[in-house]
Amino acid sequence: MRTLFHIPLSPFCRKVRLALAEKRIPFELRIERVWERRPEFEAMNAAVTVPVLLEENGFAIADSYAICEYLDEAYPDVPLFGRTLGERAEVRRLVAWFDGKFNAEVTRNLLFEKQMKRLLGRGNPDATAMRAGYQNMRPHMAYLGWLAENRAWLAGPHISLADFAAAAHLSALDYIGDVKWELSDAARDWYARMKSRPCFRAILADRVSGLTPPEHYDNPDF
Amino acid sequence: MRTLFHIPLSPFCRKVRLALAEKRIPFELRIERVWERRPEFEAMNAAVTVPVLLEENGFAIADSYAICEYLDEAYPDVPLFGRTLGERAEVRRLVAWFDGKFNAEVTRNLLFEKQMKRLLGRGNPDATAMRAGYQNMRPHMAYLGWLAENRAWLAGPHISLADFAAAAHLSALDYIGDVKWELSDAARDWYARMKSRPCFRAILADRVSGLTPPEHYDNPDF
Repeated sequence: MRTLFHIPLSPFCRKVRLALAEKRIPFELRIERVWERRPEFEAMNAAVTVPVLLEENGFAIADSYAICEYLDEAYPDVPLFGRTLGERAEVRRLVAWFDGKFNAEVTRNLLFEKQMKRLLGRGNPDATAMRAGYQNMRPHMAYLGWLAENRAWLAGPHISLADFAAAAHLSALDYIGDVKWELSDAARDWYARMKSRPCFRAILADRVSGLTPPEHYDNPDF
Repeated sequence: MRTLFHIPLSPFCRKVRLALAEKRIPFELRIERVWERRPEFEAMNAAVTVPVLLEENGFAIADSYAICEYLDEAYPDVPLFGRTLGERAEVRRLVAWFDGKFNAEVTRNLLFEKQMKRLLGRGNPDATAMRAGYQNMRPHMAYLGWLAENRAWLAGPHISLADFAAAAHLSALDYIGDVKWELSDAARDWYARMKSRPCFRAILADRVSGLTPPEHYDNPDF
């Protein structure tokens, strides 16, 4: 069986899980404790990061960018990057926005500080970073809301990897109760639409031991 | 004329310049002082980052990932991502390696601390970051050397965006005299091959005001 090596709250892993599920490609999940630096895993990915996708024929693909582009080339039936050159550039710009800018300005400051540091034994959360994370969330929610209000989906007329990248970050932050949904009705409505898609079910059913999500986490009508 | 908005020492801009030149796509360069947040530029790219590619028909593409994928789709004559699914996954894994991991562990700690901070008025270089940058360069040069020794080009049998991404980071660091070429003969030989390609000429001719590169910078036989 095709296997995705992941960490449950990693937005990069969640993006790949959503892309696989939207394309109805069956796969098994396997948690990889990257900090243990398992030699068999390092042989698949020298960077020792998740996600890594292992195809049934033994072909391993590392890095969420490489995996998502691969999935669209290998399984083009449900296209996730748009159709025209213009749509594709916009999808990728927004994927880079969420995986680059949003990740650096919001996700890392909250999820990494509060969760990953504990997991990796890297000490206590940095209060300055967390404050920056909450502050940075405001303009990001405003931009997300603007996109959601002015387009059918974030990148344009079709649902795309831009929606899944954004939803992956927000779902991980929502699990730890850190998304201020009251900042944007349009962003909340868009996320409710994302949550009600079949591809989202496994993510909403995920539970991390020792950490209970807020009540609204798996409720599409929040 | 097609225009690339850039900053001369940005590795992400250099990667796009190399890709454009390798594909023999004509373009003009325009320096964008992103810190001035020019409204016309913000309208092209809400993230207010370089590079941005503006096509003659007015179509603007933001983010180096989106631009490089666009270039290969719109101008496929000189393919930069490999031919098979396996080659393409490997090219993208290595692009992510250099633009993600190498950038975070080496480039930012040296180029950002020593150059960009001054440009952006963000204070003095952080000595701890710079020390980490020099330390992290060792395993990265070893890995680069291993790739260069075991393959015709970094990602496999063909030159690819992986070579251009790596060379973009190294050329920017080499400009400020921060690449320890003595760490790997194989890496140095690979970089000498890159420097002697026609697509590299403009990068080697670049000069940043107030900052003179070391003598070997533009010499292919260094």
